[in-house]
Amino acid sequence: MNRKRRKKGEGMGDEAAWLSERELRAWKNLLAVNSIIGRSVEQQLKDAAGLSHPQYEVLTRLGDAPGGELRMTELAGAALTSKSGLTYQVTQLEKAGLIRRSSCPSDDRGVVAVLTELGKERLRAAAPGHAALVRELFVDGLGEREFDSLAAGLEALLDRLRGRCSS
Amino acid sequence: MNRKRRKKGEGMGDEAAWLSERELRAWKNLLAVNSIIGRSVEQQLKDAAGLSHPQYEVLTRLGDAPGGELRMTELAGAALTSKSGLTYQVTQLEKAGLIRRSSCPSDDRGVVAVLTELGKERLRAAAPGHAALVRELFVDGLGEREFDSLAAGLEALLDRLRGRCSS
Repeated sequence: MNRKRRKKGEGMGDEAAWLSERELRAWKNLLAVNSIIGRSVEQQLKDAAGLSHPQYEVLTRLGDAPGGELRMTELAGAALTSKSGLTYQVTQLEKAGLIRRSSCPSDDRGVVAVLTELGKERLRAAAPGHAALVRELFVDGLGEREFDSLAAGLEALLDRLRGRCSS
Repeated sequence: MNRKRRKKGEGMGDEAAWLSERELRAWKNLLAVNSIIGRSVEQQLKDAAGLSHPQYEVLTRLGDAPGGELRMTELAGAALTSKSGLTYQVTQLEKAGLIRRSSCPSDDRGVVAVLTELGKERLRAAAPGHAALVRELFVDGLGEREFDSLAAGLEALLDRLRGRCSS
């Protein structure tokens, strides 16, 4: 895993674009963290609630919003998936009766997604198990300094990525 | 985004399982980082090389291995996807002529995946653009202290996750 990525002279072109050993290691660690955590979270939500992780995130965002509703454009801005991915997840949630879509009463800026009573129930049932797993995977077992370091690093990286997207 | 997750008395059950505001924020930052980076990397590899990110990772792992080959069980241990996901990606790579599968000459512990000449070429062509994007997303613009903090946090988290998996 920590082996030199590419032997010298192997003709890979622009050496300046390559990552240092340390940068590559951190990158691979990020990918591995995502993979391990992502699979555990998907599996738990599927087993416990019949939901994908993106579906669960849509439900929690609606659950956190006043009146349990958000415009689709607001959901898209916060979503974990691409726009087409979000449309698919919302359609699946609507078919399952967990949300419904309606036109926005206050303006004409588009469609609103609303959490149904069934959606609220499903979210309420799924949330404790999900939170316990997140705690187990992401919080427990890390020392306070380790967690602080991770939290600060993620905050800086996300600021940077969001600045890049909006520029 | 930083609003209180759940109002008190809303009957969410085991309060001890809930995450603190700070923990939840770090968790949401991890999800957002993954989402933004994941989509950018997928798009760039698809546009530039016709590869998915898991496919690219399989090719780089074979490219880093002696003789460009690994047993499927070795690939699975390092893979970003589930075992079934890996089988699918390897099949796609084989259909595209970028790898081939053969039985292992030195022992009978199973099938070996080997990078073909075409696979080596594709990897060589794709690698600089991918590395430049990783640098742009993950390294550039972060101060040294920020990067150190992130790297240390990810290292600690991955150690912890791997310990959990093997115990």
